Amino acid sequence: MSQNIPDLPEPAHPEVDSMLGRKFGKEVANYFSGSPLNRVSFLRTDHTFLSRAIQHPSTSFVLLNNLWPLTKSPTELARISYKDVEPLIGEEPFFQPEEDQIKGFNSSTYIPQLLFLGLDTRIPDSLTYKEYYTGAPYFALDVTPKGTITDAATALIETLEARSLTFISDRMLLSLSAHDAAIYATARQVMDWNLRNPFCAQCGYPTLSVNAGFKRACPPSDLAAELPARERPPCATRTGISNLSFPRTDPTVIMAVVSADGTKVLLGRGKRYPKYWYSTLAGFLEPGESVEEAVRREVWEEAGVRCGRVVIHSTQPWPYPANLMIGAIGQAVPGGEEIHLGHDPELEDAKWYEFEELRQALRVGTSGLGEEAGQEYREGDLRLPPKTAIANQLLTAVVNGFVGVESESKI
Amino acid sequence: MSQNIPDLPEPAHPEVDSMLGRKFGKEVANYFSGSPLNRVSFLRTDHTFLSRAIQHPSTSFVLLNNLWPLTKSPTELARISYKDVEPLIGEEPFFQPEEDQIKGFNSSTYIPQLLFLGLDTRIPDSLTYKEYYTGAPYFALDVTPKGTITDAATALIETLEARSLTFISDRMLLSLSAHDAAIYATARQVMDWNLRNPFCAQCGYPTLSVNAGFKRACPPSDLAAELPARERPPCATRTGISNLSFPRTDPTVIMAVVSADGTKVLLGRGKRYPKYWYSTLAGFLEPGESVEEAVRREVWEEAGVRCGRVVIHSTQPWPYPANLMIGAIGQAVPGGEEIHLGHDPELEDAKWYEFEELRQALRVGTSGLGEEAGQEYREGDLRLPPKTAIANQLLTAVVNGFVGVESESKI
Repeated sequence: MSQNIPDLPEPAHPEVDSMLGRKFGKEVANYFSGSPLNRVSFLRTDHTFLSRAIQHPSTSFVLLNNLWPLTKSPTELARISYKDVEPLIGEEPFFQPEEDQIKGFNSSTYIPQLLFLGLDTRIPDSLTYKEYYTGAPYFALDVTPKGTITDAATALIETLEARSLTFISDRMLLSLSAHDAAIYATARQVMDWNLRNPFCAQCGYPTLSVNAGFKRACPPSDLAAELPARERPPCATRTGISNLSFPRTDPTVIMAVVSADGTKVLLGRGKRYPKYWYSTLAGFLEPGESVEEAVRREVWEEAGVRCGRVVIHSTQPWPYPANLMIGAIGQAVPGGEEIHLGHDPELEDAKWYEFEELRQALRVGTSGLGEEAGQEYREGDLRLPPKTAIANQLLTAVVNGFVGVESESKI
Repeated sequence: MSQNIPDLPEPAHPEVDSMLGRKFGKEVANYFSGSPLNRVSFLRTDHTFLSRAIQHPSTSFVLLNNLWPLTKSPTELARISYKDVEPLIGEEPFFQPEEDQIKGFNSSTYIPQLLFLGLDTRIPDSLTYKEYYTGAPYFALDVTPKGTITDAATALIETLEARSLTFISDRMLLSLSAHDAAIYATARQVMDWNLRNPFCAQCGYPTLSVNAGFKRACPPSDLAAELPARERPPCATRTGISNLSFPRTDPTVIMAVVSADGTKVLLGRGKRYPKYWYSTLAGFLEPGESVEEAVRREVWEEAGVRCGRVVIHSTQPWPYPANLMIGAIGQAVPGGEEIHLGHDPELEDAKWYEFEELRQALRVGTSGLGEEAGQEYREGDLRLPPKTAIANQLLTAVVNGFVGVESESKI
């Protein structure tokens, strides 16, 4: 295993705590999950709380520049103080209640996107609000130099880089520690959602970020427009609850499919994978489908294999840009194992692999996508994704006996 | 149990077929899943296929009027032929390849939304395409009278109603047979998505339906605009793949939480529920969260209870408007069972219920939301959702021994 792969988050509760744990085993906590923050999502509309949180001495800002996060090292996000970002966000970004922000909406004013991520409950002596809510506040801020903050953002970025902090490519980020990866996952996904949705898909007019970055409102008027266009036409998102107002997460199925006799697993190869590299099949869930049906459809569409019983194993947030990976283990029906790649020509190849070959590859053939496999790996053998990928966790579960055959040599 | 509750779909494969089935039991197929259609999603861009499918004698159209489906009876969708809808969609709606449709985009032309749903593989002697794809084609069409089809749609609706076919309120639809419910679920969700997204959220300009209704493109020009505005500004959705172009499905968690000692289940009451009615807790998954984390967060936010191990049980498509219900069973940590409703004041009440009371309510106290409970129900006892709701399936699994305690009296 490559040495650049970080640890996974700890499951929230040890299995010995519960009957469910004794029956189903330890919960698998996948990379990008396991956030140490309490989102206190119901406080996102509380501008008194947000105003106190943003200037609190224990508060940290995670900064993103074109979605790349500011880091102290490849494993650690940089934590920036309010004082540093004040030139960009001003003294009181949460001074007004939301109704007033919506009334005063002016689409020509550039407001850098700010998100409230939650309270880090690990930090003692930090903010306490009302009786129950305590921890060090976390915000994320878009410092991409643009609009009216161009100069202030450029100056801030120079200052930060002089402190040896670096914005690193968000595709290289699988090196972050488990906790920081989880904090970044939410920040990146919600930031990206705001940047993709500056207009209302229902009416085409500009929208405004509210709920501390977790909702976009379609205001009824816009001070940037000349009268009489200042009052906008009616929009359905204003009169009821519309999912368009809230961040989007796309459910994705990813599945280890075992042969009918329980001895082999189906893997596929995308066209851009490194040599010898295979992974589990995956695809987007469609409207009107259960996860179990989506698994069967994707396996047939991509590989021609017919899958029967499907069991969901664990899930993983994947913020590129907005996926929920739902990891499943399925089993082919007898006689349904013939591979046919011609339906949806997405895969370059698909193959059935014996458990023993998978065990060997999980031991010595895993690495990040751009990285070399470990020292014991022999050229030509199977390569697999690292343990930070849910594909690896699914295959590990299978060779360790998830399907019903207890493994002789667990990995 | 009320007599208006339809059967559930059959699981795709019996448990005896597989080791997974023997280990984990029969797969629960929830209402709205179990579609008899093969989506052949990769043929949605094949205009030769679509052109043959739309006029084939075996083809059925499911009609929606303001999202209400045309029905033959409360349990059955009406199947309408091409000849009936020809005045609305013309002779050759799929005559052009998509590139040409995008080039010729004119936002002032009203095109009623048309969806290709798939091939019904149960119907013999129907369409065969290439070697593998056979079945009776299904389309869905929006016949809401508006734009240039107002008169033709009004006339069609009159004709259909004269045949005793009825558009029924889409909130009353839990009476449809399992297969028709699944066909309707996809039709409603994808239709609604198209109607919610006539504009590009990235750039604010009108969009065009492509991929037989399963994608919306942001064309680079619009013949409705005067020169030089005909060429639009660049839009990020045109240069890469953007999730904004594809239908949205919102992952939702719904969970039966069992007490630490495995004898009670936590239920909650929304403010608008009928008297004595409770259900499992539920809520939207947030960006950067696993399903397991979303379950723990929602249980704490809504009821103050701390939940440990979480296992995913089954899933359910829920097209109001676009949810994927991910059904889970969780277990409270010892000492974490005290109820507190003050964090997010969403519930009117929450309570722990003994298994025996749940068994009784599952036998005699279930019904659809607007309906009376069955004859054996005694006023004042617990009422629960019907078996078409995944909440009911989760509770049934729990009292039947899912958590680890084998039930004495299974229901």
